[in-house]
Amino acid sequence: MVLKTVPAVLLAGVASVLAAADPPVLNYVPKHEELAYTFGGVAPVRHIAPGTRIVTWTEDCYDGAVTRPDQLPSKVAPIGHDNPQTGPFYVDGAEPGDTLVVRIERLEPARAYGISSSFPGFGALNGTDRTAMLVPDLPETVWFYDVDRAKGIARTKSTDGKKTWEVPLAPFLGCLGVAPGNGEARSTIVPDSFGGNMDCPEIRAGNTVYLGVRVPGALVSFGDGHFAMGDGEIIGTAIEGALNVELTIDLIKHRETPWPRIENEEWMMSLGAARPLEDAARIAFKDMVGWVMEKTGLSTLDAYEFVSQAARAPLVEMVDPLYTVLVKVPKKALPK
Amino acid sequence: MVLKTVPAVLLAGVASVLAAADPPVLNYVPKHEELAYTFGGVAPVRHIAPGTRIVTWTEDCYDGAVTRPDQLPSKVAPIGHDNPQTGPFYVDGAEPGDTLVVRIERLEPARAYGISSSFPGFGALNGTDRTAMLVPDLPETVWFYDVDRAKGIARTKSTDGKKTWEVPLAPFLGCLGVAPGNGEARSTIVPDSFGGNMDCPEIRAGNTVYLGVRVPGALVSFGDGHFAMGDGEIIGTAIEGALNVELTIDLIKHRETPWPRIENEEWMMSLGAARPLEDAARIAFKDMVGWVMEKTGLSTLDAYEFVSQAARAPLVEMVDPLYTVLVKVPKKALPK
Amino acid sequence: MVLKTVPAVLLAGVASVLAAADPPVLNYVPKHEELAYTFGGVAPVRHIAPGTRIVTWTEDCYDGAVTRPDQLPSKVAPIGHDNPQTGPFYVDGAEPGDTLVVRIERLEPARAYGISSSFPGFGALNGTDRTAMLVPDLPETVWFYDVDRAKGIARTKSTDGKKTWEVPLAPFLGCLGVAPGNGEARSTIVPDSFGGNMDCPEIRAGNTVYLGVRVPGALVSFGDGHFAMGDGEIIGTAIEGALNVELTIDLIKHRETPWPRIENEEWMMSLGAARPLEDAARIAFKDMVGWVMEKTGLSTLDAYEFVSQAARAPLVEMVDPLYTVLVKVPKKALPK
Amino acid sequence: MVLKTVPAVLLAGVASVLAAADPPVLNYVPKHEELAYTFGGVAPVRHIAPGTRIVTWTEDCYDGAVTRPDQLPSKVAPIGHDNPQTGPFYVDGAEPGDTLVVRIERLEPARAYGISSSFPGFGALNGTDRTAMLVPDLPETVWFYDVDRAKGIARTKSTDGKKTWEVPLAPFLGCLGVAPGNGEARSTIVPDSFGGNMDCPEIRAGNTVYLGVRVPGALVSFGDGHFAMGDGEIIGTAIEGALNVELTIDLIKHRETPWPRIENEEWMMSLGAARPLEDAARIAFKDMVGWVMEKTGLSTLDAYEFVSQAARAPLVEMVDPLYTVLVKVPKKALPK
Repeated sequence: MVLKTVPAVLLAGVASVLAAADPPVLNYVPKHEELAYTFGGVAPVRHIAPGTRIVTWTEDCYDGAVTRPDQLPSKVAPIGHDNPQTGPFYVDGAEPGDTLVVRIERLEPARAYGISSSFPGFGALNGTDRTAMLVPDLPETVWFYDVDRAKGIARTKSTDGKKTWEVPLAPFLGCLGVAPGNGEARSTIVPDSFGGNMDCPEIRAGNTVYLGVRVPGALVSFGDGHFAMGDGEIIGTAIEGALNVELTIDLIKHRETPWPRIENEEWMMSLGAARPLEDAARIAFKDMVGWVMEKTGLSTLDAYEFVSQAARAPLVEMVDPLYTVLVKVPKKALPK
Repeated sequence: MVLKTVPAVLLAGVASVLAAADPPVLNYVPKHEELAYTFGGVAPVRHIAPGTRIVTWTEDCYDGAVTRPDQLPSKVAPIGHDNPQTGPFYVDGAEPGDTLVVRIERLEPARAYGISSSFPGFGALNGTDRTAMLVPDLPETVWFYDVDRAKGIARTKSTDGKKTWEVPLAPFLGCLGVAPGNGEARSTIVPDSFGGNMDCPEIRAGNTVYLGVRVPGALVSFGDGHFAMGDGEIIGTAIEGALNVELTIDLIKHRETPWPRIENEEWMMSLGAARPLEDAARIAFKDMVGWVMEKTGLSTLDAYEFVSQAARAPLVEMVDPLYTVLVKVPKKALPK
Repeated sequence: MVLKTVPAVLLAGVASVLAAADPPVLNYVPKHEELAYTFGGVAPVRHIAPGTRIVTWTEDCYDGAVTRPDQLPSKVAPIGHDNPQTGPFYVDGAEPGDTLVVRIERLEPARAYGISSSFPGFGALNGTDRTAMLVPDLPETVWFYDVDRAKGIARTKSTDGKKTWEVPLAPFLGCLGVAPGNGEARSTIVPDSFGGNMDCPEIRAGNTVYLGVRVPGALVSFGDGHFAMGDGEIIGTAIEGALNVELTIDLIKHRETPWPRIENEEWMMSLGAARPLEDAARIAFKDMVGWVMEKTGLSTLDAYEFVSQAARAPLVEMVDPLYTVLVKVPKKALPK
Repeated sequence: MVLKTVPAVLLAGVASVLAAADPPVLNYVPKHEELAYTFGGVAPVRHIAPGTRIVTWTEDCYDGAVTRPDQLPSKVAPIGHDNPQTGPFYVDGAEPGDTLVVRIERLEPARAYGISSSFPGFGALNGTDRTAMLVPDLPETVWFYDVDRAKGIARTKSTDGKKTWEVPLAPFLGCLGVAPGNGEARSTIVPDSFGGNMDCPEIRAGNTVYLGVRVPGALVSFGDGHFAMGDGEIIGTAIEGALNVELTIDLIKHRETPWPRIENEEWMMSLGAARPLEDAARIAFKDMVGWVMEKTGLSTLDAYEFVSQAARAPLVEMVDPLYTVLVKVPKKALPK
């Protein structure tokens, strides 16, 4: 439903075999026991050459354990099994200092329902393990959404069954990440400079994501399908669901990417993850100032001024261990 | 250029004389010595009846002191004279516990140039008086923008004169506020629950702003014209300029509005101001959850879930004494 | 009980009449209707010469409205009447750019009981108006403490009457401030660069406080007596009570003090107020680095290193509109 | 120099072999290639029985690479080799849900010099990778401190050699941690609920530290010797140095410890790590409220009130990936 092709203009400089006749294709559907629950610290499920298109599938954030509206995730989903990952994939030739290029070709709900829920100790308007409070928790609650592909919406009901609402489908990968550096392994609930659980709606079909490689082979993985999500993800979950996924993984040698970048024909986008939220924004804005300098040759101060007047900056999520902000600049507005 | 009429549907319940034959009109252009530099603590320049349309003008954030590109604001603008206000206006009959309704009818650049600048100790990617650092400051720099009304853009050059860029005109009032309660008077650089220096691009022609009245007569004022601004206002200023202003001020009796709300035919919007930025977001999201409950009869948890999937939340500014976030929900998506 | 004299060594350079035979003394006990509820925006109750010793009294933070354990503050204390101030006093000759020197000579509980309470929407482990939550509030609760002057303790009981605990008396002024600049008036719940509701246990007898003058006459006031308080003041109140107060107010001409400083024979102390809490700490640490540079002639980097190894930094309070941190350096450790 | 014995009163309930005739002793000095650079993800160097006293040594935070004042750490210390760990040790019988008890018996500087330094992009008053700024960095600078054991001080000079200062020796372990749960491995610069790089001066001889076990065997390690440190560690380093270490590791079965606790005869202490700093404080205060409830049987609200009036809360560090706050309550003040 959301199949788009990536414009050739983005591929300039990508050191891949894509230009060659037929790009390699990997058809791979993970078995449940192959799913990974960390970025880093996990052996690769497959080796791939740069330029490989992967045709695959991802489980939902509940490890597939919630299948009926009367199931509470805390009762049926195993602890520590949030956001199971498809992968990791070892990209041949990828070394620290390189950049992985992930072109997302197709994302499609793989089930007829999506699930959202509130958790005790989780969410932006709730006491949490860090914003620790003595007040009582909100109760755990589950909403099932019916996916209507024809209309392009997901539909659910209020808990008393009296009201309904619809949300336009806008599928994206909540998680996309490489293994972190320095020997670290991070839970799949964590977003950081290596990508991870960014929960960013722009990790969607038609967009290209750049991630800095931190370990040999990059060890890239993805999962946590979202059918739609509001900015902030304030209850702690999107409309969560398994996805059919097609994406192409390529490599730019000898180019560092300290923080994730996303690109399409119209926009260049930088993502920051930190707490407090202003630090997430500072990271993303600083990265964008640098990117504008690279693209235009502007001085630091001029690029700062340009971004100040041209940027859009949606709050992405404020529920994960680090909060994320996206900074976007329209390419056509770039100084000439 | 941006003249729009406010749809009648928004006016339901507004206890004004607007339904009467001809709404009162106040034509008022402030003399420089009539400008105000605080919200609260200032005598009103005029009394108006609810329903009055005010046709007026506002000075720019530099108190009109910067008129040439070679002038540094810190050298020519008087200290404490940021964001001079047109007003305050005493709204007859307004009492604490009421809500002021400000319909912005027209905003138009009143000069052929706009001004942006960086200040030492100011800006999101700079050490400031609060995010105190020992590092050197960025230098004070000024950018003049030419306003091209025909094309609807503002255009400027890099400091070395080699590059140019254009920003679409999207004029709005950086400041719109009532006097705070509890005997407080606040500088016009401050945004808070009384409105003030919200720096929010949705304070624009075509939109209606709701502000809770805190003192008798409300003492509403506005200023700090912005011709355009990126999300975050990260360098510390928008493209700043004097504006011609037309707006209608009305009153809803016996309705409290703890935080500013904005509305048009498509969107309902809540604004929060605080530090850290996540607290600004929490305020705005909580207010929106409450607003959705009022509009739909949803329970708290259902409204929380709905807003989680339907909201947009741009970062508004992160340079003023409090940072601001806007939360928006499309009206047509509301549960039925 | 806590009467101490201030060592002469601190007074060097103070441009007062103190050296003269008899310093002026003002005996003043405010009537209830003379109490002030803002810093700034209030006419002075008295003019005083620099060097005047004021012998006076302050009401408690509840405006004196809570007199029995069965009274809830929200039911009996008027809204906006928190932290009533004794003053403001107009200090003759004080001008912006000068520094007020407040030597606290004596602070003594003026009643036999102190009061502490939790408020809905207030406190560090509770949802608040800024850290907005959808969770239920903690209930309003009051603890009465008996003051035992002989033992130097305050004693209270658990709400079920089964347990008792004692807290050593350590009286201090929760509020001490001058009028802010730029035409502002601030509620007496606010701490900031002008002092105000700092809630800092070092505003105690024996210590000298330096505050930068922002308006002619300084307009200094004080109140919010605390009999004792833990770091953080996390429930939102100390053991609150009226105080008998003696302090001497002096003036240093032509010396700016951007943030409050406190001094005694052993310690030099800088106070910062901001959110998030790290910004409060940054302010205080940066001020201390500057103070060490003034005292010793060290370079910025050396002073930074010295403070890094020598400072103590208690969290002061995290419940007021801005949070406060105190940074302390022992004078005897200063580089030679 | 700082040898103290741990009072027997603390050991009640500890399920160890300590009561038995002779506790086991492990003499172990790691070779450089045995040092670890993560918490988790590393094979144990030794297995030990609960109750084992370990007599050992730790390298300094620079991996031992800085040996002369003219060496910049960024030039000589390998990237990712901060805070090398002695260990990890596999504690036989330790399972998730248990608590590790670490009694620190002796800490003694193992070299005659300690080293402090500022790093570009590091420190509380500097732009960092998270509090991202466009301003220039502070220069990398190194201070060597001479350790004078007789006087119990460390002494250094200003960079121009003209001034000297002394800091009392107060050695502690900057790092002490177990492996995190959920398959994570964390860099040794990170503090979190598993302990780690807490940089807390109370991890000192005479104190007992409680850490919740997350993986079988606990995999406890320690390092990052500090000879002394000011609150906040604002320049990014303490006076760093290798330490001779003696500590006893014991086990409490079936007792969870979500966040690190520290105890001695006088004080009970809870540690929180998070950003922003108020969240670190909230964690520690909430843990302390719970601990007081366990010890006294007070209700939540009474314990909240008690901690509010009795706690001390030094800011520990604000330079690591998470900031840390310590909350302390004097045991003798506990309600009866």
